Amino acid sequence: MRFKVVVAYQGNAYAGWQTQHLGNSVQEEIEGVLKQIHKYDVEIVASGRTDAKVHALGQVFHFDTQLDIDAYGVKCALNALLSKRIRVQSVSAVGNDFHARFHATSKRYDYYVSNDIENPFIDDFMGKEEKKLQLDAMQQAARILIGTHDFTTFTSARIDERKSRIKTIYNIEIKQEGHTTHFIFEGNGFLRYMVRMLTQTLIEVGKGRISVDHVKVMLKAKDKHACKFKANPCGLYLVNVCYE
Amino acid sequence: MRFKVVVAYQGNAYAGWQTQHLGNSVQEEIEGVLKQIHKYDVEIVASGRTDAKVHALGQVFHFDTQLDIDAYGVKCALNALLSKRIRVQSVSAVGNDFHARFHATSKRYDYYVSNDIENPFIDDFMGKEEKKLQLDAMQQAARILIGTHDFTTFTSARIDERKSRIKTIYNIEIKQEGHTTHFIFEGNGFLRYMVRMLTQTLIEVGKGRISVDHVKVMLKAKDKHACKFKANPCGLYLVNVCYE
Repeated sequence: MRFKVVVAYQGNAYAGWQTQHLGNSVQEEIEGVLKQIHKYDVEIVASGRTDAKVHALGQVFHFDTQLDIDAYGVKCALNALLSKRIRVQSVSAVGNDFHARFHATSKRYDYYVSNDIENPFIDDFMGKEEKKLQLDAMQQAARILIGTHDFTTFTSARIDERKSRIKTIYNIEIKQEGHTTHFIFEGNGFLRYMVRMLTQTLIEVGKGRISVDHVKVMLKAKDKHACKFKANPCGLYLVNVCYE
Repeated sequence: MRFKVVVAYQGNAYAGWQTQHLGNSVQEEIEGVLKQIHKYDVEIVASGRTDAKVHALGQVFHFDTQLDIDAYGVKCALNALLSKRIRVQSVSAVGNDFHARFHATSKRYDYYVSNDIENPFIDDFMGKEEKKLQLDAMQQAARILIGTHDFTTFTSARIDERKSRIKTIYNIEIKQEGHTTHFIFEGNGFLRYMVRMLTQTLIEVGKGRISVDHVKVMLKAKDKHACKFKANPCGLYLVNVCYE
């Protein structure tokens, strides 16, 4: 039996979804609990990794079980044994052909940045920028990024050269309320560091450090050294993953 | 020169405003930084203590300095040396007769409780109750508590017998939005544990565990054993302290 699991986690408590060396990853904790339940190793497959300190409201993974357990039982057992920083939101039984990574059709990431510099409550949950960001300029720059593009400029220089850097961003919405600027990115998928690099690029536009036209130049460059900006991971949330 | 300081802190990182034995109190950290700045011991006097894990948005303290430093300098020096969990909001020079505790005329405490049980982000910042709370019943019970009363029922049994237990609550406002119930208490002062005990009493009314009339009985009892309820400190915020 294959289960699809939607999970939320407080990313600042972890070294990312997956980690080779450091330990303390979300995946390891969940696999540890599944091993406790199953008495044998269980591998989980996520929709994709999240970086260290990045949060999730709706990360998705799948796993296979030989146990005679239903979806509600899986949810209760996981939430009883996981730390309070990782909470399963829902579990559903799926066909054996369901794949959390390959079948994901779109994802939404949100980013929060605050200019409430002396607020002691937000460091783990938002980026901070002293300057008030210019919403209009950021919205103009966002329109350049929406659509299907080669996003080589906005990803890690270490990315696998054989992998396509072409992605489609369906929408970027930017809202301001009080001290907070809230970015919403929806697309068919995102490259490594892509949302954080796009966000900080938009923030630099909002601060007046770079122009809207410069964003166009950066995108067209398709040059992995053309963007030096990367937003603080603490402000980033994987909100949901959609399937057909 | 005497300075009045308004400070916010993330209480879950500390063992309270003041602590005799455990260390890691907000007061100790601030006094440690003031000693660093002054090269001698500086005592600070707060409007009152907050319990372990209780947050503050606007705690107030005063201290005296022999240094030739202005209010802006004090703010910058404190925020440069304090941890990110404690942030000075404002500093002002005051007369030598200003006293942060004796001259406080009113205080506001807010409490947040959520029934979003599987949310991994709120444990340090809100109480949690699985049941949806009945707003109407809580508002009726709150009206019993507003006014000038002997609040012996709603304070620690360990309180100094010589101290008056008569306090005036100016207002209790209760609001609900989404999963969250938000309580606002304003009064001329609050006894030890009083806000947490009142909050949990109102929550028990909201859950239907005790009646509105029973709250009247509890209050009239003036019995330090009449209330066994005390809300989780993580949901409590000292919002502000007012002076003449």
